[in-house]
Amino acid sequence: MASDGATIRHATREDVQTIYDLVMELATYEKATSSVVATPELLSTTLAFADPSSTSADAFTPGYARTFLIIAPEGGIAGMALYFYNFSTWTGKPGIYLEDLFVKPKYRKRGYGKALIQACAKEVVRVGGTRLEWSCLDWNMPSLEFYQSLGATKKAEWVGLRLDGEALTKVAEGQK
Amino acid sequence: MASDGATIRHATREDVQTIYDLVMELATYEKATSSVVATPELLSTTLAFADPSSTSADAFTPGYARTFLIIAPEGGIAGMALYFYNFSTWTGKPGIYLEDLFVKPKYRKRGYGKALIQACAKEVVRVGGTRLEWSCLDWNMPSLEFYQSLGATKKAEWVGLRLDGEALTKVAEGQK
Repeated sequence: MASDGATIRHATREDVQTIYDLVMELATYEKATSSVVATPELLSTTLAFADPSSTSADAFTPGYARTFLIIAPEGGIAGMALYFYNFSTWTGKPGIYLEDLFVKPKYRKRGYGKALIQACAKEVVRVGGTRLEWSCLDWNMPSLEFYQSLGATKKAEWVGLRLDGEALTKVAEGQK
Repeated sequence: MASDGATIRHATREDVQTIYDLVMELATYEKATSSVVATPELLSTTLAFADPSSTSADAFTPGYARTFLIIAPEGGIAGMALYFYNFSTWTGKPGIYLEDLFVKPKYRKRGYGKALIQACAKEVVRVGGTRLEWSCLDWNMPSLEFYQSLGATKKAEWVGLRLDGEALTKVAEGQK
């Protein structure tokens, strides 16, 4: 719960349109709407949703990522944290990778981003994990400073690699 | 299958000691054995294992990561690729993050690393995904050149962030 009484819960399947709208709002904000090929129908098959009829913290539909939603005290859904579990061979334990963190502009400066990060950190602890990880553009100094103020450290020296599109197909088919 | 007739299969629970030995061999190679806190017992509870009695490609025990093993034609287990599924909000689809790729020194120069990467690429395609991703030390030029020869691109500008240890606990407990 954020300090102003906002609440956080896992998204259910009924929230899929809301998640899609948040994704599109984030994409619009980043001037990247043309990069979004996801649709509400696709997200309803690829995301894992909480089962609202269960009291278990781990009753989810099968899927690849889960979503925390934060609800402002006045009632509107203010933002989300979309995450999946990762794994460290060294520790032998899971962790969480925070894929997307978004708070709608009109709900900013309320600590909701931090509250969503806290929800993810609690989830890491709940599953016996050791790390919460995410990525940030290296020139985005305000965000980097905020993350470092929480105690996050930069994974300097490491560079991410990606194989996708035609290159992925070629490797999968043994043509490379 | 690698060009010399080596075969690749998913690890079952009976392979957990082999996986641990490969992790330790990798750690020894990287002079990082003190970083390894995983044990075979822990890995047997946190990894997902293939069910050898099932013919389904997706019959796995619950767990956070899966392991491909490559078996040399003369019979020994030569290496592994340990991976988990990730997710892209933009595409709305899963992908794979390759956490560890290791081939024992005596089995190198046979194309086994590439064969393990190919197995992961095929798995991305099988689940309807779009991306195979991993990380590399940015000064490791031979590896970077190999990965780029496969068509992988560097995620320049992005820096990884990690919250762990006491900092993770503090955020989880709302003390930060």
